Amino acid sequence: MTQRKEGSIFPELDGATLEGSIPKWVYFFGDGEAEGDARMRELLGGKGAGLAEMTNLGIPVPPGFTITTEACIEYYKRGNIYPLRMLDSVKEALEKIEHLMSLKFGNSENPLLLSVRSGSQASMPGMMDTVLNVGLTRKTVKGLAQKTGNERFAQDSYRRFIAMFGSIVMGVPRHLFEEILNRKKVEMGIVHDTDFRVGSLRDLVESFKILVKKETGKNFPDDAHEQLNMAIHAVFSSWNGARAVTYRRLNGIPDSWGTAVNVMAMVFGNMGNTSGTGVAFTRNPNSGEKVFFGECLMDAQGEDVVAGIRTPLPMSALMEEVPEAYEELVRTYKILERHYRDMLDLEFTIQEGKLYMLQTRVGKRTGIAAVRIAIDMVHEGLISEREALLRVSPDQLEQYLYPIFNTKEESKATLLCKGLPAGPGAASGEIVFTSEEAVKRKSSGKRVVLVRQETSPDDIHGMNAAEGFITARGGMTSHAAVVARQMGKVCVVGCEAIEVINRQSIRIGSEVFREGDFISVNGSMGHVYSGSIPVMDSEVIQVIQGKLDPSKSEKHSLFSTLLSWADGKRKLKVRANADVPDQAKIARGFGAEGIGLVRTEHMFFAENRIKIMQSMILARTTEEREEFLAQLLSLQREDFIGLYRVMEGFPVTIRLLDPPLHEFLPKREDLMVEVAHLEFMGTRPTDLEEKRRLLARVEELHEFNPMLGLRGCRLGITMPEITRMQVRAIMEAACQLAKEGKKIVPEIMIPLVGMVSEMKSQKDLVREVAQETMDRYGVTIEYLVGTMIELPRACVTADQIAQEAEFFSFGTNDLTQTTFGFSRDDAAKFIGFYRNNKIMDADPFAMLDREGVGTLIRQGIVGGRETRPGIKLGICGEHGGDPGSIEFFHKVGLDYISCSPYRVAIARLAAAQAAIREEESKS
Amino acid sequence: MTQRKEGSIFPELDGATLEGSIPKWVYFFGDGEAEGDARMRELLGGKGAGLAEMTNLGIPVPPGFTITTEACIEYYKRGNIYPLRMLDSVKEALEKIEHLMSLKFGNSENPLLLSVRSGSQASMPGMMDTVLNVGLTRKTVKGLAQKTGNERFAQDSYRRFIAMFGSIVMGVPRHLFEEILNRKKVEMGIVHDTDFRVGSLRDLVESFKILVKKETGKNFPDDAHEQLNMAIHAVFSSWNGARAVTYRRLNGIPDSWGTAVNVMAMVFGNMGNTSGTGVAFTRNPNSGEKVFFGECLMDAQGEDVVAGIRTPLPMSALMEEVPEAYEELVRTYKILERHYRDMLDLEFTIQEGKLYMLQTRVGKRTGIAAVRIAIDMVHEGLISEREALLRVSPDQLEQYLYPIFNTKEESKATLLCKGLPAGPGAASGEIVFTSEEAVKRKSSGKRVVLVRQETSPDDIHGMNAAEGFITARGGMTSHAAVVARQMGKVCVVGCEAIEVINRQSIRIGSEVFREGDFISVNGSMGHVYSGSIPVMDSEVIQVIQGKLDPSKSEKHSLFSTLLSWADGKRKLKVRANADVPDQAKIARGFGAEGIGLVRTEHMFFAENRIKIMQSMILARTTEEREEFLAQLLSLQREDFIGLYRVMEGFPVTIRLLDPPLHEFLPKREDLMVEVAHLEFMGTRPTDLEEKRRLLARVEELHEFNPMLGLRGCRLGITMPEITRMQVRAIMEAACQLAKEGKKIVPEIMIPLVGMVSEMKSQKDLVREVAQETMDRYGVTIEYLVGTMIELPRACVTADQIAQEAEFFSFGTNDLTQTTFGFSRDDAAKFIGFYRNNKIMDADPFAMLDREGVGTLIRQGIVGGRETRPGIKLGICGEHGGDPGSIEFFHKVGLDYISCSPYRVAIARLAAAQAAIREEESKS
Repeated sequence: MTQRKEGSIFPELDGATLEGSIPKWVYFFGDGEAEGDARMRELLGGKGAGLAEMTNLGIPVPPGFTITTEACIEYYKRGNIYPLRMLDSVKEALEKIEHLMSLKFGNSENPLLLSVRSGSQASMPGMMDTVLNVGLTRKTVKGLAQKTGNERFAQDSYRRFIAMFGSIVMGVPRHLFEEILNRKKVEMGIVHDTDFRVGSLRDLVESFKILVKKETGKNFPDDAHEQLNMAIHAVFSSWNGARAVTYRRLNGIPDSWGTAVNVMAMVFGNMGNTSGTGVAFTRNPNSGEKVFFGECLMDAQGEDVVAGIRTPLPMSALMEEVPEAYEELVRTYKILERHYRDMLDLEFTIQEGKLYMLQTRVGKRTGIAAVRIAIDMVHEGLISEREALLRVSPDQLEQYLYPIFNTKEESKATLLCKGLPAGPGAASGEIVFTSEEAVKRKSSGKRVVLVRQETSPDDIHGMNAAEGFITARGGMTSHAAVVARQMGKVCVVGCEAIEVINRQSIRIGSEVFREGDFISVNGSMGHVYSGSIPVMDSEVIQVIQGKLDPSKSEKHSLFSTLLSWADGKRKLKVRANADVPDQAKIARGFGAEGIGLVRTEHMFFAENRIKIMQSMILARTTEEREEFLAQLLSLQREDFIGLYRVMEGFPVTIRLLDPPLHEFLPKREDLMVEVAHLEFMGTRPTDLEEKRRLLARVEELHEFNPMLGLRGCRLGITMPEITRMQVRAIMEAACQLAKEGKKIVPEIMIPLVGMVSEMKSQKDLVREVAQETMDRYGVTIEYLVGTMIELPRACVTADQIAQEAEFFSFGTNDLTQTTFGFSRDDAAKFIGFYRNNKIMDADPFAMLDREGVGTLIRQGIVGGRETRPGIKLGICGEHGGDPGSIEFFHKVGLDYISCSPYRVAIARLAAAQAAIREEESKS
Repeated sequence: MTQRKEGSIFPELDGATLEGSIPKWVYFFGDGEAEGDARMRELLGGKGAGLAEMTNLGIPVPPGFTITTEACIEYYKRGNIYPLRMLDSVKEALEKIEHLMSLKFGNSENPLLLSVRSGSQASMPGMMDTVLNVGLTRKTVKGLAQKTGNERFAQDSYRRFIAMFGSIVMGVPRHLFEEILNRKKVEMGIVHDTDFRVGSLRDLVESFKILVKKETGKNFPDDAHEQLNMAIHAVFSSWNGARAVTYRRLNGIPDSWGTAVNVMAMVFGNMGNTSGTGVAFTRNPNSGEKVFFGECLMDAQGEDVVAGIRTPLPMSALMEEVPEAYEELVRTYKILERHYRDMLDLEFTIQEGKLYMLQTRVGKRTGIAAVRIAIDMVHEGLISEREALLRVSPDQLEQYLYPIFNTKEESKATLLCKGLPAGPGAASGEIVFTSEEAVKRKSSGKRVVLVRQETSPDDIHGMNAAEGFITARGGMTSHAAVVARQMGKVCVVGCEAIEVINRQSIRIGSEVFREGDFISVNGSMGHVYSGSIPVMDSEVIQVIQGKLDPSKSEKHSLFSTLLSWADGKRKLKVRANADVPDQAKIARGFGAEGIGLVRTEHMFFAENRIKIMQSMILARTTEEREEFLAQLLSLQREDFIGLYRVMEGFPVTIRLLDPPLHEFLPKREDLMVEVAHLEFMGTRPTDLEEKRRLLARVEELHEFNPMLGLRGCRLGITMPEITRMQVRAIMEAACQLAKEGKKIVPEIMIPLVGMVSEMKSQKDLVREVAQETMDRYGVTIEYLVGTMIELPRACVTADQIAQEAEFFSFGTNDLTQTTFGFSRDDAAKFIGFYRNNKIMDADPFAMLDREGVGTLIRQGIVGGRETRPGIKLGICGEHGGDPGSIEFFHKVGLDYISCSPYRVAIARLAAAQAAIREEESKS
């Protein structure tokens, strides 16, 4: 997606001042010809571009027009007022529709009805508003009845229209309409909407109008043009509605894009049994299998399918009811898929046997499906490997690593019901029935599963908080299913066995469940179980752990095919951050080409070691300290031997001790309280004295801002005996393995260097101890001494530091802290506020800040290469696993990135994508 | 002083490999012609260059030669081995001396004796070694006696030589020689060294040799050439002796300079009553008055004067004893002062009525004298105003601000004794007798006065720790006096009334003083008082406070003359950091051109306000918070009115609330202990509950790294009501005064901005509140909204921030913290270690780090000007008062600096010097 620079639209030319240069606000399509095409997504939105493209392809689309996203932005700029002349263009386009349809908008005899839909550049399923049947008034409803000879249809359309327009455009709560509807059903003794007679529908129309008047103080508008105007306003406004804003924030869509408005002649799927409406995918969006896949409802309008209010039928129903229209649909989907060279999501309506396409767009799919479709399409010759690599987002690839249920445990669990498998994976959690509860429990650390009749865009927050969700109604294309695919959540829809008892309980079969009860969902199978089922590793991870034969896992095969293509494209090497051999093994399994960061301090936190570490810190003399260091030495040596064995032949970057020493000691304030307690309890003086002594030492080490205190190389410089011990352990381990004939490539990394003098001082010490160790073993090891670049000063004096450092590894976590002056431990509260208030787009600790931190990194690279042209450059902060940041690291020309072992595969893909995109932008 | 780049000497040409290109290691002078001259300070050291220059001017100087500083550096490079062929050149030069003097080195009949003195580029008085009478052996001492017909003189020289050589070159503690000497005096019943007979001197010679053998295991060398070699080694080595290293660290002299060695034919001031030696200044080094000023000793050698062992006589003694030599001296000093165009420090020896100049150099002077001499020399037409400005260091100017005794109290105090006024100013403190004790008491916060028989270079640490020092012996040119002038310490020397009783007590007159007793020193008058006398402001400060009529203070007149010249040269404006009207008044008195930083939070720490502030912070709702803010509003408005009145017509930069809120609350750990106590005491539950509630809120605000937490603009953004209150106070105050017809120039400063979005958000709020306030008053105020640039991210994105900010003020304190990753509160411990271990030269919080922080500032300036060419740029960190940093701020082209009120004058001078130096470097 290309991002449009904010405020760059017509910076000088405003329609209000220069009449001649008013932009084109409205694009017409119809009768095999359109003013727009598929390339105009930015301007027309995805939907508008798709309608234009389909029209141009000769596919049956009702005529209509698209109001551009630029008009929307202009509308906001002017304080919610339409841009000049937009309405004139709308009028012109409307006349063309009237002409093509031989109908007249607002005319009592031959009325044209319109649908009004939003449509932005990115798909935001259900987030914004759609109004159907615009143009129905007291007058035109009669005309519609006469013309179609179907008064029931006309009144049904009218009552739908009033409820839809009343709620969306005029703001009357939707459930008030539903309550009237349900009362009427009870009164009439009927179950389905389709069972209403004309009289009841007429009554409903009147009741709905009274409701609107009561709730808004205004009469329901009875003028077609007024309705159209209001509907366009409503679509524009829905861009800044709470739902849409939340969705955009979750999906990183800029607020500045705006939405287009698509106005189209209505066609009716609710004109009886040869009418219908449906949604289809050209391939299975869950598994990726190459089968046409869709759902439809006969005698219904589109919102019935999407909202999941009625559970839809499979496509076979269509084949039976209207075989010719079905064949036309198959022909059409094949043309479209070949044309777009991607799996598509289609919306269509059949009006009295005739097919109309209402929408086409690239279909959302699960990560599992994305990989399969991409690979299949390469094999089908539709797309290239490069395209395939760009089609799978790193997040999608990650779904191959999501846990699944332990098979044995699952087979023993009580199966409650089956539904449609709408979001693959496995989830267990406490049942919640509302989004609020989901968010609440999640924030107190619980795992929850949201259970709903159906979901709506209002639930987006709760869906985000839940591990998975289950709906009683709705199909594979319902709101819940679409969102699940996109968020990568576990989801089962259409579990008709679920019966809502009240707001706090449901019944499934004979069992009653209350909020907080445990439930489990297998989203790949569509199974719902009672209680909690333990999860196990995904197939891919099982293969990597050697627990599953790769030949038995199709998923692993897809996964590794895609990654082998990625390796052919990427330029960045990918390493992992690993502290113990087990992590290193996983990393190798995912294809890591070395370790980019061993945090040696992690090795000291083990229970048997922390005591020695504490004694070392509390030592009063250098001699005493060296005694405890000697104990740590042999432990560390073994650690390194383990890591080296796994990474034989690959570089292993070992960082010397980094954190402030008080991290290894009891907390100061706890000790203070303890001493206060002991004082009061009149305890044995020796105990008290001991605590006081400990407290005194902790006080000595106490710092106001430990992040900016005695840590990193400052430790090794002020206490060289620590560096000496660590280097000895690193080199003894390497020498020992070298004697076994193994190739060991240690890279010793000095942390938190800000001045070349620090680097030199530590490097000299490292070289001295290393040489002495190698002499002792009679072995020569090729090793490097470098530094982590994690301070602004290191970036701006990188030319000097490179005089001593043989490699740089950018420590973007700390660099982000000091560049922004944000403590990672403290900044969360205001970063949240900042993001909600648009001061910041993203958390800089998750996504690299290119403008600030990135600029310093660039300076560091330039400085480093200036002094030492061949200097090895990498990055080992959290950002090493973030695809957006990886793109940056590729662009600035690092040699490698290092991330957590489980991110290695994702990083390989992201690195390939960065390389491909760069090449494409050059050509 | 130009600094030589380390390691740049002969990077490729080493004498060892390329015989043809050996550098010239030795420069000869003598007989009216010298190989060097005054411009060769770097190579020959100050002393060597002065001797060469004097020789060239035809002034009588004993012949000799200088071994270069490059030879010294090469000596260290080779691991304390002389550079190749240096000894050959020494031999050649020695032969020239022998020829000119018609004497022969090591010859028993006609022996030449030599002095061997150190001499680096910078004067390091007494820090390094001097050896006189080199060449005296069993053989030559006889020749000397015969030739001079003065055996007493020969033996006296010999015993001096053995003690000097034995201690300096061979490392025998000096006091062991003195003990032998003192025992001999008691034995012989004599008081002065000059009373020894020949026999006793011979005994001493033998005893000294036995001592040397006993202490070192070696015989005292009896070969002249061996002695010379050893003496040169000793001088080279003394460059890295502890004393010299300490001195250099205190004075910022690079270790890489090295010392030259000056070898000269000995002339003898101890050849009887027509011989003598002395030290003179061409003007008074304490007051600056234009009078020839010196001290001499008849029948003595130079070290007797400098060490202060005998109290010297005034120059009038010389006039009486050797009138012709005296006249020659006066003629010489006038030639030299006119030649060097500066006040000079001269050393001379008169041998049997004939004058020899041994040294000339620019004389050390007090700050008071420096200003007067500079101004006088401008009036005498010797130097230009620019030169005068460069001659006074900012530290020297600061001496005009040092406190003096309260005159009334001083007149009531008990005068103990009078001595020579060697370091002007006033000091009171506890008596200490040793340097160790001085350092110890100083570090526990005490003020001490060091009292000594005489001081030596070993005392440099203690002298630095003391407020002032008093010596019993020594004159105005003694070690104590020289160091006092240079360090700006209060000092009285030559207080003969002081009698040392033992190591813990002294007697002055009838009173006995022990360590820790109080004593007071008036260094301008040379008075020593019993007890502690309250100090009062200096004359200059009294004038500024309006307590003294400027016409009655000559010092104020000198001070302001120099500053008025400075104002004519400088380009930087100088403002002050001031939070209250009194500070602002002082600042104006010192010439501040506005306030560069009002720290509004300082206004909240007053006792009556902190309570309201705490309530504001603890408020649970925005409404509650606004109630307390309203109370603070009226207080702040009055603060600003006070500041504006003082600074009428000048800009006042007001920074919005900056520190983390918990700074205003009780400490978390204290509360935790308090709660623990209350729990144990079984206190009233309500008290406990209240404390717990407070603790809970404090916990909420607690941060791991408050420096990187919720502070600066993050406060104003997350709690806009605080910004609103402050802006209202700022603007209401301005409007109120504007209505009185006053011109008020507020500059509102947003702290800790890292992103332009932060700046924009606060600026919009400021503009809104300001406009609303001005509308309310019906007044228009011209004001600016800008930011403090104090984060690396702000520097690298300054181009963006300048889109919103109308001025930048670099906050170098915080910028130094984040650039280095050093917490100012925590870094002291390792910065000390770093400086001692040469990882760092200077504390970056005191002297701006040009390479790191400076580079970021440059980027900030470039970015800011790129976007907003006329943007106002200043600096308001502590560095604004540091001359070295000011030079940098001038170079990078800031508009103004802002410093503490008492540094304003110093900053004006430093700014002028920076401008002059820059111009000079261009021409």
